[in-house]
Amino acid sequence: MLIKASVIGASGYTGAELIRLLSLHPNVEIISLVSETYKDEEIAKNFPHLAKLVTTKFSSLDINSIAKNSNVVFLALPHTKAAAIAKQLLSHSSKCKVIDLSADLRLNDGIVYEQWYEHSAPDTALLDQAVYGLAEIGLRKNIAKAHLIANPGCYPTASILAVAPLFNTTINHDTCVIDDSIPLILDAKSGISGAGRGLNLTTHFCEAMNNFSAYQVSGIHRHIPEIEQELSKLANKKITIQFTPHLIPTPRGLMVTAYCKLKHKVDINDILQLYNTYYKNSYFIRINATEKHPGIKAVIGSNFCNINLYFDKRTNFLIIISTIDNLIKGASGQAIQNMNLMYDLAETTGLDIAGIYP
Amino acid sequence: MLIKASVIGASGYTGAELIRLLSLHPNVEIISLVSETYKDEEIAKNFPHLAKLVTTKFSSLDINSIAKNSNVVFLALPHTKAAAIAKQLLSHSSKCKVIDLSADLRLNDGIVYEQWYEHSAPDTALLDQAVYGLAEIGLRKNIAKAHLIANPGCYPTASILAVAPLFNTTINHDTCVIDDSIPLILDAKSGISGAGRGLNLTTHFCEAMNNFSAYQVSGIHRHIPEIEQELSKLANKKITIQFTPHLIPTPRGLMVTAYCKLKHKVDINDILQLYNTYYKNSYFIRINATEKHPGIKAVIGSNFCNINLYFDKRTNFLIIISTIDNLIKGASGQAIQNMNLMYDLAETTGLDIAGIYP
Amino acid sequence: MLIKASVIGASGYTGAELIRLLSLHPNVEIISLVSETYKDEEIAKNFPHLAKLVTTKFSSLDINSIAKNSNVVFLALPHTKAAAIAKQLLSHSSKCKVIDLSADLRLNDGIVYEQWYEHSAPDTALLDQAVYGLAEIGLRKNIAKAHLIANPGCYPTASILAVAPLFNTTINHDTCVIDDSIPLILDAKSGISGAGRGLNLTTHFCEAMNNFSAYQVSGIHRHIPEIEQELSKLANKKITIQFTPHLIPTPRGLMVTAYCKLKHKVDINDILQLYNTYYKNSYFIRINATEKHPGIKAVIGSNFCNINLYFDKRTNFLIIISTIDNLIKGASGQAIQNMNLMYDLAETTGLDIAGIYP
Amino acid sequence: MLIKASVIGASGYTGAELIRLLSLHPNVEIISLVSETYKDEEIAKNFPHLAKLVTTKFSSLDINSIAKNSNVVFLALPHTKAAAIAKQLLSHSSKCKVIDLSADLRLNDGIVYEQWYEHSAPDTALLDQAVYGLAEIGLRKNIAKAHLIANPGCYPTASILAVAPLFNTTINHDTCVIDDSIPLILDAKSGISGAGRGLNLTTHFCEAMNNFSAYQVSGIHRHIPEIEQELSKLANKKITIQFTPHLIPTPRGLMVTAYCKLKHKVDINDILQLYNTYYKNSYFIRINATEKHPGIKAVIGSNFCNINLYFDKRTNFLIIISTIDNLIKGASGQAIQNMNLMYDLAETTGLDIAGIYP
Repeated sequence: MLIKASVIGASGYTGAELIRLLSLHPNVEIISLVSETYKDEEIAKNFPHLAKLVTTKFSSLDINSIAKNSNVVFLALPHTKAAAIAKQLLSHSSKCKVIDLSADLRLNDGIVYEQWYEHSAPDTALLDQAVYGLAEIGLRKNIAKAHLIANPGCYPTASILAVAPLFNTTINHDTCVIDDSIPLILDAKSGISGAGRGLNLTTHFCEAMNNFSAYQVSGIHRHIPEIEQELSKLANKKITIQFTPHLIPTPRGLMVTAYCKLKHKVDINDILQLYNTYYKNSYFIRINATEKHPGIKAVIGSNFCNINLYFDKRTNFLIIISTIDNLIKGASGQAIQNMNLMYDLAETTGLDIAGIYP
Repeated sequence: MLIKASVIGASGYTGAELIRLLSLHPNVEIISLVSETYKDEEIAKNFPHLAKLVTTKFSSLDINSIAKNSNVVFLALPHTKAAAIAKQLLSHSSKCKVIDLSADLRLNDGIVYEQWYEHSAPDTALLDQAVYGLAEIGLRKNIAKAHLIANPGCYPTASILAVAPLFNTTINHDTCVIDDSIPLILDAKSGISGAGRGLNLTTHFCEAMNNFSAYQVSGIHRHIPEIEQELSKLANKKITIQFTPHLIPTPRGLMVTAYCKLKHKVDINDILQLYNTYYKNSYFIRINATEKHPGIKAVIGSNFCNINLYFDKRTNFLIIISTIDNLIKGASGQAIQNMNLMYDLAETTGLDIAGIYP
Repeated sequence: MLIKASVIGASGYTGAELIRLLSLHPNVEIISLVSETYKDEEIAKNFPHLAKLVTTKFSSLDINSIAKNSNVVFLALPHTKAAAIAKQLLSHSSKCKVIDLSADLRLNDGIVYEQWYEHSAPDTALLDQAVYGLAEIGLRKNIAKAHLIANPGCYPTASILAVAPLFNTTINHDTCVIDDSIPLILDAKSGISGAGRGLNLTTHFCEAMNNFSAYQVSGIHRHIPEIEQELSKLANKKITIQFTPHLIPTPRGLMVTAYCKLKHKVDINDILQLYNTYYKNSYFIRINATEKHPGIKAVIGSNFCNINLYFDKRTNFLIIISTIDNLIKGASGQAIQNMNLMYDLAETTGLDIAGIYP
Repeated sequence: MLIKASVIGASGYTGAELIRLLSLHPNVEIISLVSETYKDEEIAKNFPHLAKLVTTKFSSLDINSIAKNSNVVFLALPHTKAAAIAKQLLSHSSKCKVIDLSADLRLNDGIVYEQWYEHSAPDTALLDQAVYGLAEIGLRKNIAKAHLIANPGCYPTASILAVAPLFNTTINHDTCVIDDSIPLILDAKSGISGAGRGLNLTTHFCEAMNNFSAYQVSGIHRHIPEIEQELSKLANKKITIQFTPHLIPTPRGLMVTAYCKLKHKVDINDILQLYNTYYKNSYFIRINATEKHPGIKAVIGSNFCNINLYFDKRTNFLIIISTIDNLIKGASGQAIQNMNLMYDLAETTGLDIAGIYP
């Protein structure tokens, strides 16, 4: 089976990573790679790492042609741009499917979207149609049937996967183990590619190098409502988080250090078993309760999410270290994982890549 | 006035930084630089950045000679080695003073030391004599009179300075603003020089580069009792912290992200004023409540501690970002600051250096 | 077809990269991964990026068993260790083949080996049997028939590929274009993984980071005779080089800047055509005469060698920038490329990986 | 004595470094810091490392006021902007002095300027007035008397200092030791701050990190005529160089690897003595003929130029490794060294700073 795939917004970092991963995928034929910036230029001129591997040129946007010739279209566009294009593609007679990597369709409630994004929400019908594309939290069947995927954000992916088993009421009958009198503390750290390929002083080499910085510290990052929405669904009650993002002076990789107050002491092996059970069919989750030095290096270049579990006996806090490659499991790899599910391929097809080390 | 200064353990990173800072200090004459590893070798052979600046050779340890010829001796030794040497120096007839950069004398209670360090505690008389060398938390007078300084750890320096005004009962009459039903969450990140100059796989270049990792995650880092001890003294009650250290892929710099639950909403400007009042005589503290992108780069190469204040209205959490250069304010610079106080020099003498940027 | 492959010396950086690449190869079954350091330990405990991908444990060396059960054995051992093991394997009745990644068998002349390596040379019969494994310089047929491959060094790979077409007398009838009154100047720069996983101060994170250094500057690097040997064979006369290696503060990637004095002006397009002709069947060579900013990033994570050509009209110098990933085309990827040739597989099997960017 | 100093173009990297160094200088009072970008803003808002150290605000350009109130004005402007402002300042009745850090006034010959810079040359009178500010090549007296300094470029500083003793006909009576039938090969590597604070893709963090790249490879970098001009003056004949610049993934530091063909064998100690004699009064030059691992780290943060000498007996090449901090000895530190000479201060005043390590 050969899936005809196109990418709109192909010249940012998630776009370039989509091209790379699609070019390695055994069941994909690349149709159109849309970049208004580089239209009609060779891919290799702008992305020399892809020379000889991808021969399609960048093109400008022709929605009708793309819809007609593609089975699936990936949108790697800035938020506020993606929803409208998704809508046009979906309304086309060709019945192509859409995987949107932007934030436009992740929040189910347009009012919440408008509060956090300060922009008109996409229309309700479109929001209702979008399936949140995080397979591992019990959404595989929904994804498989979807025509429109809202691909999760990088911070939400690592955050939600880190704590989902604790909030899941199906498996974890004793969710009351969590003391929810305080918010879940999520201290997040991301490689700088998360800030995109657009130029600004913060991501200028000499400013970012030898630096480590925090931003949007006062609980205002737009991934907050996305994380709270998904955790609240899992927990069947409103979950609140305290979230602070930081920038690591490295291109790729993302870590979330989650602090979760428990009501009483636990045996870390019980938590480990809970996680193993919850993720037993999830190849891309690697769980560990003995790792002394968990780091992003173990996942960079791969679609894995490593989850490391620790319990502090002095304080009854569970500390969870969750790591992903922000461009792969946090964006383009996850998008392809969703495509695999939508086309009934093995979830790992084209994604059985080891991280790069050292 | 010329202070005759020696360093024992001069060839680690804090030792080398002491040499550099002492060589720039207008009131210091360097007497002995002890390194068993490099004894009789030129400084510049091992530390080429000091060529032409320091001409003293490394020597082996001769306590009697050092005590006799030095006014002040800095100990940049591993913990368990420092206390015994401090004792010998202090018992010498010369009355030299000692500034110990190790952890040996920071904990007032030998039993706590033995719990955390798994090693016999120094004797009680020595512990009682040691003054904790963090000038900014009201200890200047004690430091000025001390013969023995326990120089604070790097994480404790940034952590305690971050929250001291909140716990101080003198200025902050309403300490009950803090909800102490949960521990203070301190998510800490350090540059790799904090791990020292000794070789191990974790700090091998190819392992640490492109990585960001956590360690001692389950609340077991030895700086925890030091931080709790000093905060408890300030608060007049037992304070508990949840502390997780991480390694940043950069040589220098340290950030603590502190999460402090408040009982009710506050105006960030009231907090700002509290901090400004508390630190009004502390040159090396720079307080800011509007910085959007606080980072370690602003303090690297200097003795400053930058404190950035944020309030999250959704959760009533105060988030404080505290940054230092771990080798300067977190070690060798602070040691010299203490020396200045002990010799009645302006606290900033020899430390009026700007951070290096970019 | 399934090739049974083993690695001896599997826990260094080239060893780990061999494991990763072999685990992705569609025609390989991994038999034994020998590491005396980690014997009986899980791969993933020491190389967490390989968790779930490789389940074989490390084992200790049992030559007889390895020879019996493997079709091909990769030696990722230090020089002076490899030759003896190669000899034992080759003399075993099983007729397994050996690909040696060390320097032991690269120099055809034992006397030259002893001059540069200050160690007894392997015996002549073994040296005579070894085929130099650089396919692109006309050696594919020799490699295909070989039982023993001397896999090229990282610097030699990039250096020889950079200039081979200029010295090749078959295609380049006018080799007299090169003014050989001066040595070929090769200014080389390598990522730090080239220095291996063994600990030393030079590759300690804080020493190597923010540094860029030269080493073995006075023409004494052991890759010099290897480069001169292969270029001299191509040119049918003695070629001399001036070679200086440097360390880049990055884990992977290697660049050679070659300065070649020409006897008279040339048109860069003639040189480009010469290169295109010479490398027309070499997929892994990417040639470019218009790249303004050639860098190692375009090849990191891949088996490509990018060759960029420039001519300076003021001086009649041809400047060639050659880049590889030192662990892939410069070591483990090239070893697998050689294995592919030895087993009549497409040269690119298992190596059709794009570089990682950004 | 207090020198009133101003900086025009104060918000680039050399500008910011000038502010830092001037703020530490015991004989300087800062008058105006001109930045059109940040006019009327606090220094610390844009350069938080300078908070508490510099309280002057950025201002917009008022030539008359600056000329009237300053003794010396530093121009840290892009080339093509600086010359005109220098002229206005010098023609002002106040007789202020000007130190120009741009390239506008470094080339003595306007025709050469126009060839390389593709822009009209400054007028001849101004060019004639400008003194090249490289004290160590015998120019101290000229600098001391100058009203206008053309501060050398970063690559020229490291390049010229690397080889000046070889070309100097006063001390080196046997300059014929150099075989000038080939150009001097200068393979140069610079930290990325040399590319400035302006935004572009090449210096975007994710593009530059994990990269090492060459640029302007075909002998077209604008520092070439500057190096050739000064070496030709020293040698009393036309000297030609082959110069290739590269970018190191680090903010600061610059290395030149110089390859110099000699006519016959030399004893490296004779070369060492030649250098020691030539630079005997030059504090900022540190010469070494035994360093095994010369690197930029030894000079970062200081005004030193380290020169390391090697001889290759196989080829009769002298290889010289020269390292500087591109923003200090390669720009702002050298500008202050020149100011010191112009005001009869010790050359090292305000510059007796050790490099930062690690």
